[in-house]
Amino acid sequence: MTSIKPRLLKGFRDYLPDQMILRSRAMQTIRGVFESFGFVPLDTPTLEYAEILLGKYGDDAEKLLYKFADNGGREVCMRYDLTVPLARVVAQYPDLQKPFKRYQMAPVWRGENTGKGRYREFVQCDVDIVGTKSLLADFECIWVGHNVMKALGVERFRIHVSHRKLLEGLSTLLGDGLTQRQVLDVFRTVDKLPSQGRERVESLLAEEVGLDARQIATVFGFLDISGEIEDVLARLDTLFAEVPLAREGIADLRQIFSHARSAGLDMSRLGLDLTIARGLDYYTGAVFETFLEDLPSLGSVMSGGRYDGLIGFFAKQDIPAVGISVGLDRLFSGMEELGVMKPQTATAEVLVTIFDAALTPRCLELASRLRSAGINAELYYQADSLGKQLQFADRRGIPLALIVGENEVAQGVVGLKVLAEKRQETVPLDQLEARLKALIAGT
Amino acid sequence: MTSIKPRLLKGFRDYLPDQMILRSRAMQTIRGVFESFGFVPLDTPTLEYAEILLGKYGDDAEKLLYKFADNGGREVCMRYDLTVPLARVVAQYPDLQKPFKRYQMAPVWRGENTGKGRYREFVQCDVDIVGTKSLLADFECIWVGHNVMKALGVERFRIHVSHRKLLEGLSTLLGDGLTQRQVLDVFRTVDKLPSQGRERVESLLAEEVGLDARQIATVFGFLDISGEIEDVLARLDTLFAEVPLAREGIADLRQIFSHARSAGLDMSRLGLDLTIARGLDYYTGAVFETFLEDLPSLGSVMSGGRYDGLIGFFAKQDIPAVGISVGLDRLFSGMEELGVMKPQTATAEVLVTIFDAALTPRCLELASRLRSAGINAELYYQADSLGKQLQFADRRGIPLALIVGENEVAQGVVGLKVLAEKRQETVPLDQLEARLKALIAGT
Repeated sequence: MTSIKPRLLKGFRDYLPDQMILRSRAMQTIRGVFESFGFVPLDTPTLEYAEILLGKYGDDAEKLLYKFADNGGREVCMRYDLTVPLARVVAQYPDLQKPFKRYQMAPVWRGENTGKGRYREFVQCDVDIVGTKSLLADFECIWVGHNVMKALGVERFRIHVSHRKLLEGLSTLLGDGLTQRQVLDVFRTVDKLPSQGRERVESLLAEEVGLDARQIATVFGFLDISGEIEDVLARLDTLFAEVPLAREGIADLRQIFSHARSAGLDMSRLGLDLTIARGLDYYTGAVFETFLEDLPSLGSVMSGGRYDGLIGFFAKQDIPAVGISVGLDRLFSGMEELGVMKPQTATAEVLVTIFDAALTPRCLELASRLRSAGINAELYYQADSLGKQLQFADRRGIPLALIVGENEVAQGVVGLKVLAEKRQETVPLDQLEARLKALIAGT
Repeated sequence: MTSIKPRLLKGFRDYLPDQMILRSRAMQTIRGVFESFGFVPLDTPTLEYAEILLGKYGDDAEKLLYKFADNGGREVCMRYDLTVPLARVVAQYPDLQKPFKRYQMAPVWRGENTGKGRYREFVQCDVDIVGTKSLLADFECIWVGHNVMKALGVERFRIHVSHRKLLEGLSTLLGDGLTQRQVLDVFRTVDKLPSQGRERVESLLAEEVGLDARQIATVFGFLDISGEIEDVLARLDTLFAEVPLAREGIADLRQIFSHARSAGLDMSRLGLDLTIARGLDYYTGAVFETFLEDLPSLGSVMSGGRYDGLIGFFAKQDIPAVGISVGLDRLFSGMEELGVMKPQTATAEVLVTIFDAALTPRCLELASRLRSAGINAELYYQADSLGKQLQFADRRGIPLALIVGENEVAQGVVGLKVLAEKRQETVPLDQLEARLKALIAGT
């Protein structure tokens, strides 16, 4: 037999159980928070016609698409995000009741340069609200993100909010000569500020976007406005006194933060940060990015914004929408680095040992009883020495083990080993489930 | 703006919320059953090097692989099943503690001819036990499958069990002249019996496998053995009295069914069915397929078996393994057709209406309280007429609605509408969570 070397593609990963148990718990937590807001689940295919995805994300992003011809010769792409497929769905099924509030938790694929925390396959957990311009919807996206972080036990996060209309207002301040292309390029370049630094962004604005020194000074005069939310809003009022579009953005932000105070959000977790632009072309209103305060270099772990024009690519009319996306894998790598998560290596709560092969039927009966009672019971598969079986439980991280011997069967009892405490107790069979549940609740 | 027609690739589907709420509930149920046996989750990439997947499934299957060159020129394949990636994982991480009991719930891709219930992307929910030859492991695969069906509320299912060694023993009865290739072809042809019928299989055995009339009669003499488990075993004892390999298979089956009786399985749900062969090359021992008794034409909704040779493709040595896979999509289409599932269109349990825009802060506060209390509360996004808001709740399938008016705020109460009963009650704010939970538990 020729042996094939087991290996992974660059940029792809296995999630072994130690990681996957935590991931799967986290995804259940996120799902619970999403549903607490009344979001409903949606799933879309991994593959879409290429034309559905092309022309939506901007040139930089498009190079990263996994694109190929399928067996039938159709040009197809693997899902790049969950937003464009949502836009297709909304256009394709016009009867969906609005506002349509959906969540989707699914992998996406991008042929990125790989590196620390950057993979080519990663899971996004998105909520979007389609069909309303109400700022309550923008705010609910921030709110659900805030609650997700709290529910995951991440305390030191900060959701940075800004607004695309401020950036568009800024382009008015830069002078009328700017093309639409240049305006988009300004956004995309500003978006590189956290990762590439001020000097680099200055030179990109000069050389690639074609701004002059006065214009660059205007850009940074804007970006440098920072501080408490109310102070930033007041300074924006002054800066944009004569720019109606920007004034709309300011009014939106003021309302969004006011809702946040009413809802009792932890305001120390929110900020108004004018350096937030979002790289993707399709945003039109409020935009959000989220950083872990102890790991700012990780980049944003949860991002989104309002995109009132995207669905119009597919539908006969524009349909407003706003959403936020949790980058589960990046968030997880951050939580791991910060030690936020308690390791868990087993799903089983008790091991049913086989002390004597002849008593296997009793062990099967017991495992059946426990599973019916909602206790996760793993069965050992052969009558090895008891020491070996207990060592197995210990290494696997199963906290309890049951021992069924001939004497125990005769007396209607079972031996129960508490591994962490290296002690054993004898439990009457009719009290077994209750005793196990008490011990499990205590561990 | 050029409008792009929103459409799906042939063989792919959207799962809209009405379906996805049920799917997601079912997947959580299945996960719970898997974990009740101590299985731990694993996730592997969607894309693998082509050489990892090629040569494992047999020629018929291989034509269906989604294969392409990625941006870096690597030959890659989309996941065809969850078993071969598991084999790679086991070989790649030799330190995984054995028996390694993992579950994986993930989509796979096959370029099948599409048709009723046949899609090119579908979800498999697999459990596998790697690293033991114990027949308790084979039996636990049947057991977990049995419990999955019961937990999903499917009552009239039947798990058909057979054994590859019986088929290999059959090839001994056919005479020594058969090549290994022909033996595999016999398995694959017999596997088509449920879908293509006896006559067609007879002619395939003659024309494509090259069996003579006596050999075909021997094959059908074997396949025709049916009835109660004990009777079938007794007849196999006679047929294979002189064929040691087949006798091993008979002994395995006898033991597996004996375990099933000890564990208290519903024996009416199990059968010994010699027509079960499984089309894939890699099985070596017990094999399983599961049919819905009221929809046999649907095909198997849960299949698996023992495959002691597969991991050896990647590892230096053979590592025994056995598993079972729930074909979620096919099972679901069957459950839908049989009306097993109760429809559910909303995740929200209560709608917080906005009776008066000026009271929006109170509504936000209320939504926050309910969500913190574990109640799924959807917020209406604007102060439309109350009638319109209640109609919205009704159409969405949200059973309850809260009404916060100025008088109510002054009196410390809130109006609570029970939509199905078209009645309203007034609830003191400090009893709101308790009252809602009581109503939700009742609905």
